Amino acid sequence: MRQSQLLVPTIKENPADAEVASHRLMLRAGLIRQVASGLYTWLPTGLRVIRQVEAIIREELNRSGAQEVLMPVVQPAELWHETGRWTKMGPELLRFQDRHDRDFCLGPTHEEIITDLFRREVHSYRQMPCNFYQIQTKFRDEIRPRFGVMRAREFTMKDAYSFDLDEASFADTYREMYDCYSRILTRMALDFRAVDADTGNIGGANSHEFHVLAESGEDVIAYATGGDYAANLEKAEAALPEPRPKPGQQLEKVATPGVSSIAEVCDFLGVEPAQTVKTLMVRGEENLVALVVRGDHELNELKAARLPGVVDPLAFAGDDEVLAAMGSRPGSIGPIGCSVPCFVDREAAALADFVCGANEDNFHLTGANWERDATLDAGLVVDIRNVLEGDKAPNGQGTLKFLRGIEVGHIFQLGTVYSEPLQATVLDGQGNSVTPIMGCYGMGVTRLVAAIIEQNHDEAGIVWPEPVAPYLVHIVALNYEKSEAVRAAADDLYETCVKAGIAALLDDRDERPGVKFAEADLLGIPHRIVVGERGLKQGNVEYRYRREPDNQALTPEAALQRVAGD
Amino acid sequence: MRQSQLLVPTIKENPADAEVASHRLMLRAGLIRQVASGLYTWLPTGLRVIRQVEAIIREELNRSGAQEVLMPVVQPAELWHETGRWTKMGPELLRFQDRHDRDFCLGPTHEEIITDLFRREVHSYRQMPCNFYQIQTKFRDEIRPRFGVMRAREFTMKDAYSFDLDEASFADTYREMYDCYSRILTRMALDFRAVDADTGNIGGANSHEFHVLAESGEDVIAYATGGDYAANLEKAEAALPEPRPKPGQQLEKVATPGVSSIAEVCDFLGVEPAQTVKTLMVRGEENLVALVVRGDHELNELKAARLPGVVDPLAFAGDDEVLAAMGSRPGSIGPIGCSVPCFVDREAAALADFVCGANEDNFHLTGANWERDATLDAGLVVDIRNVLEGDKAPNGQGTLKFLRGIEVGHIFQLGTVYSEPLQATVLDGQGNSVTPIMGCYGMGVTRLVAAIIEQNHDEAGIVWPEPVAPYLVHIVALNYEKSEAVRAAADDLYETCVKAGIAALLDDRDERPGVKFAEADLLGIPHRIVVGERGLKQGNVEYRYRREPDNQALTPEAALQRVAGD
Repeated sequence: MRQSQLLVPTIKENPADAEVASHRLMLRAGLIRQVASGLYTWLPTGLRVIRQVEAIIREELNRSGAQEVLMPVVQPAELWHETGRWTKMGPELLRFQDRHDRDFCLGPTHEEIITDLFRREVHSYRQMPCNFYQIQTKFRDEIRPRFGVMRAREFTMKDAYSFDLDEASFADTYREMYDCYSRILTRMALDFRAVDADTGNIGGANSHEFHVLAESGEDVIAYATGGDYAANLEKAEAALPEPRPKPGQQLEKVATPGVSSIAEVCDFLGVEPAQTVKTLMVRGEENLVALVVRGDHELNELKAARLPGVVDPLAFAGDDEVLAAMGSRPGSIGPIGCSVPCFVDREAAALADFVCGANEDNFHLTGANWERDATLDAGLVVDIRNVLEGDKAPNGQGTLKFLRGIEVGHIFQLGTVYSEPLQATVLDGQGNSVTPIMGCYGMGVTRLVAAIIEQNHDEAGIVWPEPVAPYLVHIVALNYEKSEAVRAAADDLYETCVKAGIAALLDDRDERPGVKFAEADLLGIPHRIVVGERGLKQGNVEYRYRREPDNQALTPEAALQRVAGD
Repeated sequence: MRQSQLLVPTIKENPADAEVASHRLMLRAGLIRQVASGLYTWLPTGLRVIRQVEAIIREELNRSGAQEVLMPVVQPAELWHETGRWTKMGPELLRFQDRHDRDFCLGPTHEEIITDLFRREVHSYRQMPCNFYQIQTKFRDEIRPRFGVMRAREFTMKDAYSFDLDEASFADTYREMYDCYSRILTRMALDFRAVDADTGNIGGANSHEFHVLAESGEDVIAYATGGDYAANLEKAEAALPEPRPKPGQQLEKVATPGVSSIAEVCDFLGVEPAQTVKTLMVRGEENLVALVVRGDHELNELKAARLPGVVDPLAFAGDDEVLAAMGSRPGSIGPIGCSVPCFVDREAAALADFVCGANEDNFHLTGANWERDATLDAGLVVDIRNVLEGDKAPNGQGTLKFLRGIEVGHIFQLGTVYSEPLQATVLDGQGNSVTPIMGCYGMGVTRLVAAIIEQNHDEAGIVWPEPVAPYLVHIVALNYEKSEAVRAAADDLYETCVKAGIAALLDDRDERPGVKFAEADLLGIPHRIVVGERGLKQGNVEYRYRREPDNQALTPEAALQRVAGD
C-alpha cells in the first residue's frame, strides 16, 4: 500500500483521556477512532491487524476440528427466557423491541442460539462430538467503557460451543481447546498464562481464563512458585491454615469510644490486624448474613456470593439495616453472640485470643476464642478471602506470587447448564436419549489487538510482533517526490515485495524525514527500509528491525532478504 | 473437509414456507437456518460461500483503490439528527436506548459515521480523492421479511463511501465504482444489468442499481431494444407522447348509474380504456391533490411522490376525504372542473375526446378536451405513470422490454447531501474551503448468495459457479466405511487436493449411494468424483461436472486434472 493513499491519521501528543498505553498508541498511530463511548471505527491499519489476528484464530480453530458458522447479532428473547438468562442478566444485556413490539437483545454471547440449533439439527451420537465457532460482532452495554477497545461496548469476539456425549469425551474436547488457545497466543508471540477462573454470568462448573501478562491488566493472577497452580485472584483458593492454637486469654469487653475501623482498633488496643477479625454484613435470601474475615484480609466478593443463602451478586447491608439486625453500628459488630447466620473465613476461624466488635456501640472484645465463646459449625467455616502475595500456595508447592493480566480468552465447562433447560438431546449408540455436555470458549479479537500492544511497545510507539503486524515491511522513501533515484529505488523495492506476497507499506508522502521516522516508529512495522539519496549513491539503503536500535547500511537485495527472514 | 465431521443438515422435501428457489435450496442444502423472522444462522457450507463472495468483493474494491475500514453496528443518534434522518427514516430504522437512556440505532447504512470520520480526519486536497469501504453486519427492521436471506432483517453488506474535490474527479470515481461492480458480478459468472434507479432514503441526484436477472426478482427492469437505456420500472421514463389531436367531439354529460371502475365505464360506454382517464386523489402538503393518468396506465407512486406539494411517501385519500373535496365519490371524479391542484400524466394530457368522471355521483363526461374544457398549465403535465412493455423507448431507440431482477448493488451520486449538513470541508490547492462531493456504493453480500442460486440451480439442487462454490470438488466415496480399497483411494484423492490447495469435501459418511448422490446434487459442488469398488477394479473413478448431465469413467489422476481445469 502507498501511504499517500492510506488514511493513517497520526497524533503527536498523547490524548488526554487515554489511560493505558494501548489506547494511547492505537489513537496516536491512527488505528482506531471513537464514535461514541465504547464504540469505535477501525481505520485501515488497525483493521489489518484484526484480520491477522482472526486468521491465526481461524486456522487453529479449524485445526482443532471446530466448524465455523455465523449466528445473528440480534437475538429473540424467547430463547433467553428458556434458560432464564433474560431476567438473570443485568443491564449489560442490551434489550429492545422491534417494530412489532417483540423483545430482542444484542448478543453478548450465543449459548442459547447455538443450543437451539443443536437441538433442532443434531440427533445422533454419530454426529458427535461437535464444536461450532464464529468470529462476530458482540455488544455489551458496559456501564463505564474504558481503555479504548480493551473494554468497549461493541467488539469482535471468537466464540465456540462444543457438544459431547459424555464427560470423558468432553475432557478431550476441553483439553484440545485449552491447547488450541495456547497455540493461538504462542503464534502471536505473547507472554500469557492460563488460570483457574470464576464462571460468572455464563455458568457451569469450572473455567480457565487466558491472560496476556501486562502491568496495565485489570486482573490479578495468583500463581504458585512451585508446580503449575495459577488462578485469577477472584477465584484463587487460600491454602488451609495451620491448626488453631488453644485459648490463652480470658474474654474481656473493652470500651473503645469512637474506635471503628481495624486500623483504629489496632492503634487503640496495640494489637496487629492479623489478631483481629472484621465482620461484614450482606443481604441473604431472607435475613442479613454476617461474613467474618481476619483484620488484615480482604473479603473476596465472588467467593462470598457463592455461599448458600447469600444474594448473588453480593449486596452489602446499609448502616441502618446493620443496626436493626445486630443492635450496634457496623464499627462494633462481631461474631460473638451474633444473632444472624455467620460465615467465618478459614483463616479467621484459625485464630485464638482475637479481637472483635462486641455488638455494642463503642465496645470491643479481646481474648475472644471460637468454640469457647462462639459456636463454630463446620459448614460455616469457608474460604471467602482474597489470597495475598506470599501466602502458602494451595497446591502445597511454595508460595503465591501475583502478576497482572489482560483476559483475552475464557473457556468454560458448562456441563448441562444450557442443554438441560433447552432440552437438547441426542440418541447414543444404544438408542438412549442423552443430554450433551457442553463447553464454551471465548476469545476477544479486538481486545487481543490492544493486549498485543500492551506487551509490545516502547517509548516511540508500537512494536508489532511479525505474525500480527499490519504490514511486514515499511519502505520509507526520503524526498520521494523530488528525487528520481529515490522514487525508482523505492518503487522497485515496493513492487518486488508486492510480487513476492510480502505486505509492504511505502511511505511516498511529501513529508520531512523527521516526521517520517517518528511516524514509522509509532506505527511499529517490524522491518524498515529507508531509501535516501545519500545511501543510494553508495548502492545502499538503511535497514532497521523495529525491535532493535541500530540501522544497518545494506544493499536493497540484502535488506529484502532480512525482511524475508533469509 | 470430511463430511462426517461437518454439519450439513439436508432436507428432502421443499419447506412449505419458502416461496423462492434460493430460499428453498438454502434450507434444503443446509446452508442456513432461521432463528427468528428475518434472522438467520449461516451453517458452515453457507458461510464458505459468503467468504468466497466477500473475497471477490474485497479484491476488486482494493483494486479500485478503496480502503477497508470497520465502523460500529450501533450508531449514536446525534449524527442522525445532524442530517435529519433520525426523524425522516421510518420504523425500518431500529432505534433503542442504552442503559443511560441515550438514543442509538442499529446501522442500516453508514453515511453519517463515515462523513463524521472524514470531517475530523481529512483536511487537505492532498488526501483526496478517497473512498472507504467495509463489509459488515447491517440491520433493517423490515415490516415483512421474506424470501430467506434475500430480504432479511440482519444481513451482510459491503458499503463504500467516496469523497472527491470536484464533479470531474467524482465522475471518475463513480465510473470506477460502476466498473468495479461490473467486474465483481462478472467474476461471479452472473448475468446482470446496471440500470437507472430511484435514490430513495439515501438521497442524492442519480443512482444505478445492479440487478442479477432472475424470474423471481422483486424488481422489474425496463430496457430499450436499441442503445443501452435500462432503468428500474420505478424510475423508467416514459417517452414523449405524440402531439395531441384537435378536439372532434362535443363535451357531454352521461348518466352512468352504478358505474365506477375504468372497466365498468368502458363496458358501459363502449370505449377503450386508452380513451379514458382515471383520477386518483392523494394527500398534499395542504389540501388533496389530483393525479390523472390514462385509463390503461398505472400510476408510478415514486414518480408521483416527487411532485411539488405532494406528501412523500405517497398517501392515498380516503373515500370521505375525496367526497368532501370533490363533491362526489372516487368512481365519478375527473379533471374537468376539478377544485384541487391537478397533475396530469403526459400521455393523459395527449388525449383528445376522452372520457372521465363528471365530479357528480353516477355521471361521466364524454368528448372531454384539454384547454377547451379544462385549463392545462404546462407545469402540471408530468411523467407519473409506469412504462409498459412495447412503449417507445425514452432514448428514441426502439421499444421497451421488461426483465425481472434482484437488486444486489446500488451506487449513488450523493453530491453534498451529507457533507453539507455535517459541515465536512477540506482545503483545496488554493487554500479555499471546499465541501466534498460524495458517492456511496452498497452491495448485498448475503443477498448475492441467494441471487447466485436463483440464477444457478436445476431440479436437483444448486449448481454453484466455481468462483463462489463452497468447495471446488466433492469426493463421494461409496461404502467408505466397509471397503478398504474405496477408503484408500478416496483418502488419497482428498489428501492430494488438500496438499494442492483445492477445496475438497469428502463424503465419508455411512450412507446409501442413493442418498449420497441426491445430496451431492443438492449441494451443487462444481466437480464430483465418485469413488466406488466396481470402478476401482478397472482403475477408474466416475467424474461429473455438476452443470453437465454425464458421468465419465476416468483414472483418479485424470479426474483431478479436470478439477484443476487442465
